[in-house]
Amino acid sequence: MADHGVEQPLLAGLKDSPLQPKTKSIDKRRRFRHCRSAPAMDAFPEKTHIALSPISESILSKLYPTFTRVVVILTIYLGIGTFCFFTVRHQIKGKKTNGILDSLYFCIVTMTTVGYGDLVPDSFTTKLLACAFVFSGMALVGLILSRAADYLVEKQETLMVKAIHINHTVGATEMMKEIETNGVKYKFLMVTTFLVLLMLTGTVFLYKVENLNLIDSFYCVCSTITTLGYGDKSFSTEGGRVFAVFWILTSTICLGQFFLYLAELNAEHRQRALVKWVLMRRMEKIDLEAADLDEDGVVSAAEFVIYKMREMGKISQEDIALVMEEFEDLDADQSGTLSASDLVLAQSSRKGS
Amino acid sequence: MADHGVEQPLLAGLKDSPLQPKTKSIDKRRRFRHCRSAPAMDAFPEKTHIALSPISESILSKLYPTFTRVVVILTIYLGIGTFCFFTVRHQIKGKKTNGILDSLYFCIVTMTTVGYGDLVPDSFTTKLLACAFVFSGMALVGLILSRAADYLVEKQETLMVKAIHINHTVGATEMMKEIETNGVKYKFLMVTTFLVLLMLTGTVFLYKVENLNLIDSFYCVCSTITTLGYGDKSFSTEGGRVFAVFWILTSTICLGQFFLYLAELNAEHRQRALVKWVLMRRMEKIDLEAADLDEDGVVSAAEFVIYKMREMGKISQEDIALVMEEFEDLDADQSGTLSASDLVLAQSSRKGS
Repeated sequence: MADHGVEQPLLAGLKDSPLQPKTKSIDKRRRFRHCRSAPAMDAFPEKTHIALSPISESILSKLYPTFTRVVVILTIYLGIGTFCFFTVRHQIKGKKTNGILDSLYFCIVTMTTVGYGDLVPDSFTTKLLACAFVFSGMALVGLILSRAADYLVEKQETLMVKAIHINHTVGATEMMKEIETNGVKYKFLMVTTFLVLLMLTGTVFLYKVENLNLIDSFYCVCSTITTLGYGDKSFSTEGGRVFAVFWILTSTICLGQFFLYLAELNAEHRQRALVKWVLMRRMEKIDLEAADLDEDGVVSAAEFVIYKMREMGKISQEDIALVMEEFEDLDADQSGTLSASDLVLAQSSRKGS
Repeated sequence: MADHGVEQPLLAGLKDSPLQPKTKSIDKRRRFRHCRSAPAMDAFPEKTHIALSPISESILSKLYPTFTRVVVILTIYLGIGTFCFFTVRHQIKGKKTNGILDSLYFCIVTMTTVGYGDLVPDSFTTKLLACAFVFSGMALVGLILSRAADYLVEKQETLMVKAIHINHTVGATEMMKEIETNGVKYKFLMVTTFLVLLMLTGTVFLYKVENLNLIDSFYCVCSTITTLGYGDKSFSTEGGRVFAVFWILTSTICLGQFFLYLAELNAEHRQRALVKWVLMRRMEKIDLEAADLDEDGVVSAAEFVIYKMREMGKISQEDIALVMEEFEDLDADQSGTLSASDLVLAQSSRKGS
């Protein structure tokens, strides 16, 4: 455990083992004095990335529904929906083609809230059934949207962690900035391209298969992906409805994703402005006092980070209080710092109790 | 500046001024040794809340559009929409009542993507106009939703900050927990109650004024608030459309808010589970090494907080790196800690350059 496989020592050039028994902590000031001869920018950067244990990935997968699970839920939902509407198909009026296809089509038009009105429920049972399916459908579309967004965010996070490990000697900060800055923009461009392609496909399909003119095709596409669904133009042929089943679900979710990323870009822009403001703001004596967590009269790097993060709104008072409780429990010798000996003490007292 | 108006000293009982010139920092260990005689739970709690300067509120109001501005944008949108559709009212077919009322009603049915289809565009111009209005309408509804959510979050934040200031001697942690835990639940209950009231009002109105039976009224209400809008049942009388103009906008946004808070509750639940897991996880020697930001062989309270926050995903590597750069700039004497003398030095060098 004494080797430095996880982290490069801060001042590797000093050939000083950074993990020493607690009695050596008096070296702290001396080591920082050595530091004065080094250029200011070299003082921390390498150490400022914190390696996380890989275990934290397993808890994430437990807490978030996997992409596969969302697909399974969607399939079950559509299966039950199609079965229900097929059973009551004679209580639905409007343009009909194939029984099962119409039920699936009606189910998708309802869950995405497009609601053309080319097929409408015509009995109390079907009306109440439609009400139940539209609410659960909305919740499901929300789940798909949040799941898709989380999925991409996690991928990005993994990429970042990898980047830290590969490039942990030089330029890690720059690299991270690059990835974080372009991450949302990249996702936004991806989804925009996909959306334009889906709109083109829909327009061409309606023009060719449903025999609408170009303006009407485009109008029907816009009316569908926004879930407006006036219903004066819709998919009326059997082939059209087969296409619609896949296309409506994909394109409405794609537009939802588009607006989600737009909001995310906007939020990131504001967050960046706030971060910039917090960093540019001059520290006053009063800030020093407030930031000095352990009241030793000086603000350490870690205390400074916490103060600024609190100011940026990234962490709350509750977060800090919870972790501090844990810290006090762990600090078995009540020295105000954690060392290897504290861990041994805490472990033995746990076994004893 | 030497008085303790902002923060209570950590170890007030020791009658020791916490803000001393930097040379006194050697007292740190001694002060913590005194600490050993005190009960473990008293070591930090009072100091763990960080007072923020009130200036940060002004930057927030600059970055986020105010509620008033959103209302102004909505009014302008509806004004332009009503004017446009009134101009082309003869190119819209369907059940008509009053010219201006129908235009406003059509505008709202389009922007909320309800799209009954009781009024439909009947020329290329009106079709393209409807396409333009539905996209911008969706964006606007999204803005209203995010604005309303932010508004409530900010209110809660202000409440929290006040709570810290009022109650900064005892029980601040407990109080904060109380507010944060019940905040989202409270908002969720509020919006649910309001939604049920809106649904009841809509059902009774349709039953009384539009002469629908109770099931049809409920069905039309569900079809409207979910923006499904099959269009077989809608508002066809003049009185009905006056009511619809206000009711549709309020109820669709209210349902959106309902799903937003549901997602927030869910996210909070997961976050809480993650926090619990991170806190329960046993610290190993390898964690100590990784958490030791300044490489002095021991983990201070602040370093521990940063490590845990990073593990909880609350702060990112980029955040830490940015703040550390600022810290190094401020640390004029490169001692690894900030003190009042650093601020004076940094200020004079800024003036000099």
